Amino acid sequence: MDSLLLSRRDLDFLLHDWLDVTALTRRPRYADHDRHTFDAVLDLSESIATRHFAPHNKQNDAEEPRFDGERVHIIPEVKEALRVFAGAGLTGAAMDYEVGGQQLPTVVANACTAWFQAANVGTAAYPFLTIGNANLLQAHGSKEQVDTYVRPMVEGRFFGTMCLSEPQAGSSLADITTRAVPEADGTYRITGTKMWISGGDHELSENIVHLVLAKIPGGPAGVKGISLFIVPKFLVEPDGTLGERNDVVLAGLNHKMGYRGTTNTLLNFGEGRHTPGGAPGAVGYLVGEAHHGLAYMFHMMNEARIGVGLGATALGYTGYLHALDYARTRPQGRPLTGKDATAPQVPIIEHADVRRMLLAQKSYVEGALALSLYCSRLLDEERTAEEESERARARLLLDVLTPIAKSWPSQWCLAANDLAIQVHGGYGYTREYNVEQFYRDNRLNPIHEGTHGIQGLDLLGRKVVMNGGAGLRLLLETLSATAARATAAGGEAADLAARLEQAAARVERTTATLWSTGDPATALANASVYLEAVGHVVLAWIWLEQFLALEDGADDFHEGKRQAARYFFRVELPRTGPQFDLLDSLDRTAADSRPEWF
Amino acid sequence: MDSLLLSRRDLDFLLHDWLDVTALTRRPRYADHDRHTFDAVLDLSESIATRHFAPHNKQNDAEEPRFDGERVHIIPEVKEALRVFAGAGLTGAAMDYEVGGQQLPTVVANACTAWFQAANVGTAAYPFLTIGNANLLQAHGSKEQVDTYVRPMVEGRFFGTMCLSEPQAGSSLADITTRAVPEADGTYRITGTKMWISGGDHELSENIVHLVLAKIPGGPAGVKGISLFIVPKFLVEPDGTLGERNDVVLAGLNHKMGYRGTTNTLLNFGEGRHTPGGAPGAVGYLVGEAHHGLAYMFHMMNEARIGVGLGATALGYTGYLHALDYARTRPQGRPLTGKDATAPQVPIIEHADVRRMLLAQKSYVEGALALSLYCSRLLDEERTAEEESERARARLLLDVLTPIAKSWPSQWCLAANDLAIQVHGGYGYTREYNVEQFYRDNRLNPIHEGTHGIQGLDLLGRKVVMNGGAGLRLLLETLSATAARATAAGGEAADLAARLEQAAARVERTTATLWSTGDPATALANASVYLEAVGHVVLAWIWLEQFLALEDGADDFHEGKRQAARYFFRVELPRTGPQFDLLDSLDRTAADSRPEWF
Repeated sequence: MDSLLLSRRDLDFLLHDWLDVTALTRRPRYADHDRHTFDAVLDLSESIATRHFAPHNKQNDAEEPRFDGERVHIIPEVKEALRVFAGAGLTGAAMDYEVGGQQLPTVVANACTAWFQAANVGTAAYPFLTIGNANLLQAHGSKEQVDTYVRPMVEGRFFGTMCLSEPQAGSSLADITTRAVPEADGTYRITGTKMWISGGDHELSENIVHLVLAKIPGGPAGVKGISLFIVPKFLVEPDGTLGERNDVVLAGLNHKMGYRGTTNTLLNFGEGRHTPGGAPGAVGYLVGEAHHGLAYMFHMMNEARIGVGLGATALGYTGYLHALDYARTRPQGRPLTGKDATAPQVPIIEHADVRRMLLAQKSYVEGALALSLYCSRLLDEERTAEEESERARARLLLDVLTPIAKSWPSQWCLAANDLAIQVHGGYGYTREYNVEQFYRDNRLNPIHEGTHGIQGLDLLGRKVVMNGGAGLRLLLETLSATAARATAAGGEAADLAARLEQAAARVERTTATLWSTGDPATALANASVYLEAVGHVVLAWIWLEQFLALEDGADDFHEGKRQAARYFFRVELPRTGPQFDLLDSLDRTAADSRPEWF
Repeated sequence: MDSLLLSRRDLDFLLHDWLDVTALTRRPRYADHDRHTFDAVLDLSESIATRHFAPHNKQNDAEEPRFDGERVHIIPEVKEALRVFAGAGLTGAAMDYEVGGQQLPTVVANACTAWFQAANVGTAAYPFLTIGNANLLQAHGSKEQVDTYVRPMVEGRFFGTMCLSEPQAGSSLADITTRAVPEADGTYRITGTKMWISGGDHELSENIVHLVLAKIPGGPAGVKGISLFIVPKFLVEPDGTLGERNDVVLAGLNHKMGYRGTTNTLLNFGEGRHTPGGAPGAVGYLVGEAHHGLAYMFHMMNEARIGVGLGATALGYTGYLHALDYARTRPQGRPLTGKDATAPQVPIIEHADVRRMLLAQKSYVEGALALSLYCSRLLDEERTAEEESERARARLLLDVLTPIAKSWPSQWCLAANDLAIQVHGGYGYTREYNVEQFYRDNRLNPIHEGTHGIQGLDLLGRKVVMNGGAGLRLLLETLSATAARATAAGGEAADLAARLEQAAARVERTTATLWSTGDPATALANASVYLEAVGHVVLAWIWLEQFLALEDGADDFHEGKRQAARYFFRVELPRTGPQFDLLDSLDRTAADSRPEWF
């Protein structure tokens, strides 16, 4: 039976036929790898995801983590799955050999990640948070910090968190009030409350390594006064053994719409329940330099945001495969022509409207997977391309694409989950089937790691204007290059290329129009609409890229890809017309609405 | 404090400033009523909804009905709320005096209904199912049936259900297999299994009156052989007391994404557990004539579908008010211009993107409420207009509007709920807040009482072509009449009128194009897209109607309405352009996709 998690055929097509990931093995970092090791780690991921993650996905939702005031209770299947995951070396899949990693390309590691996110996003969140934490520490921590915390994380003994938000300061990090007071021994004492901390407490690992944004008294106001600290749940002795309990106290669990398998916590630092050395405050260790905390955090944000987009993609993808399986096997009704009531019912995939919903899902989830892997490939380019100019180019393109790679799958793979429910009809609305959980799990993705609105401001307010507009120019050049190849290929590809070029021209023109007024408030009033419109143009480009990579292939897989590309160009890309019109009009309907009018 | 359920100000505007419902009191049926009685029943509904329905809405979701194999357990607050509801005479709000009703206009009764749906859709479902059942029996049952079943339903002693679907036949009623075998005494013995039966079992009422579609052996195949039966849970003796338990057995509860407070059941008829009189099968009583069951059921379908749209509207509306309340009170971040980190944070309604999300919600939910009440008013016209031609006109317009009145709120007030979550950020994703439940509850509405896809086929395949296209012509004339008034009013109204006329012309042209091929499969391939496009045009008309009804009003309420109308015309109506383009191209991308390509 084909997997209902992801399509390995599609992954292989994207990784090899399109992104040519084995070419990366010519780079020194990946020289030990080849197609065989890539295939092996994908096989292993599919197998572990299928055997150890998927089976408890529903149970992890129905019996969510529970806090009895002292301990967090989690169904035992979670710990077992994570033991198998770490035991297979997957935590360190993309990390350096020197910290115990496998040094796989990020694009391959992320393809592996998608299997786990599709199988059980609640359980998978623990290692992926840990990986983000470890990557940050590897980049900005001291050697001692790496040895003390990163290695145990790669081994699966320690898990990690990111502690940014506070109850009074969600997206507005300038307003955090957690304090870090320096001690004579070079450590800090941390006091404050952190909100929305995923994996913030549990007994799944020996220790939890919190990365905490806090302000050192006397520092600059706002985001310029933010520093980054390691605050472990248990202090670590010089020999690596666990010491005293640190003063990080679970104040409560948030009860969520979905993603229930992942504990999401309110944490008090320095509450006074545990006082290592008898002094007030949780013990924290400064990472890098004081007041550079936000920069370190944002350094990792591209990867984190691509990870969110990938997670949204994986949930959309598995929902699509579930809907497809249902549509192929559920008999219901008859063709519009020939309503002979005595004839047997047909599988619902025979109905045009069901195929429409499946094709829409296919175009969203396969498009989003391609975009996610393309961005992952850029991460590898940024890290390993031989020429500095190539690395800079990858970084710039990634900067522009990141808000889209985060938000587009979060919006459209969620829409895919909605359609997957609809294909199932009443059954899709029940918890006996899987698709309603996918929707609930996925609904988090437009919110965390920067909401949709924040991604819009990031794209229009920063990314397309930075460096004199170099990022936007590079994006448009990249689209044009694909269009040129498609034009040269002729036929249907050339037709699609013409439409992509038109759309790209609108991006350029509309961006100029928006910034022509010199009034940021007007330019940014519809930044979310801009994000959505540019996102659809980028996805049209991704679909043209895939169309070209099909070459002369003519089996069902290739025909299906072509049809999804056609669908995207015929049904989806035209949605952007009214969006660009609205933006070109410098519309202020929402901006001019007074609060008292609502 | 303003209610977070609905806006009474908006209701009053729609009912009086726009729909002039007191004019109905000149009709004999409503002669006893006046503005005072209308206000009183609305006050009563708001009060009971607020005090008895809203408080247990979350608990009803968290502690959903549970079946222990013998009995269904429901939190006691539900029964108490329903006792108060029926005690206030609200079950019979729109029913005839002769069955114990209040004979209020449907439009007023539906405005009352919306309060309960906004407060607690799970609890409210029981009486509203009962009302639909009672209305059907009053229209098509014998006098004895009305006396035996309808009066106790109006009194709140009996509840009702509708039993259509079966596990092997969801939307395809031609394929039902439940059998009804005639007995010598004129009764029938019913055997079969019914799926998705809301309110199918519970102990909230003394008795449950199931209305069951079944086939009498030897009848015509397909839908022409369907008859309608009353199958009470307990047989009713001639003196009205309850007799033997009928053989209707709860086989299980469905566990749903939302709407959890309403039991949703799999029922076995004639399982053999109870055998009244010792004979096999549940005792059933034929309603009306044999083989006319589907017609009777569809007679009530307009009301049921408007009711679904109204429920979707109510959930969208309360979600909007919750989001508005949050946006006004939650400080977060600072204006784009003037990012002084030492200045206090501002309420998030100050951010343009939050206002954009609020304005979108406002345009959806107030538009949907207006449409729902307009259609309810048409039901009153159909029933009580003095001239037969006026009644026929109301019926025809209602026929065309019903698929839109069902599907548009189900789609866009669900979108409003999605935006309400987004306005709340992370908090909106938690079950500590209310909006995620509204989304989950509302997600049922595009599925039940005919899916979105089925509404599309109904609109394009039946309603706009029936009677030689008379329904579509009437709809377009109605839109034109509004546009003409707006043109005469001049100024901004005239500008909106011009845009509405353009859109209406596209509806006419596209409909003709779709049916020009003589190929129904091609015409109907994108029926759902047609439904959505025409729905948006209809809502633009509804917004223009509201705009005109504002007259010279200039307080915040009026300005807000005007702004929402502008938003709808500037942001929403243009979405239809690419949809009409697609339809005009007779697109077959989905239709031509082969099942094996997915």
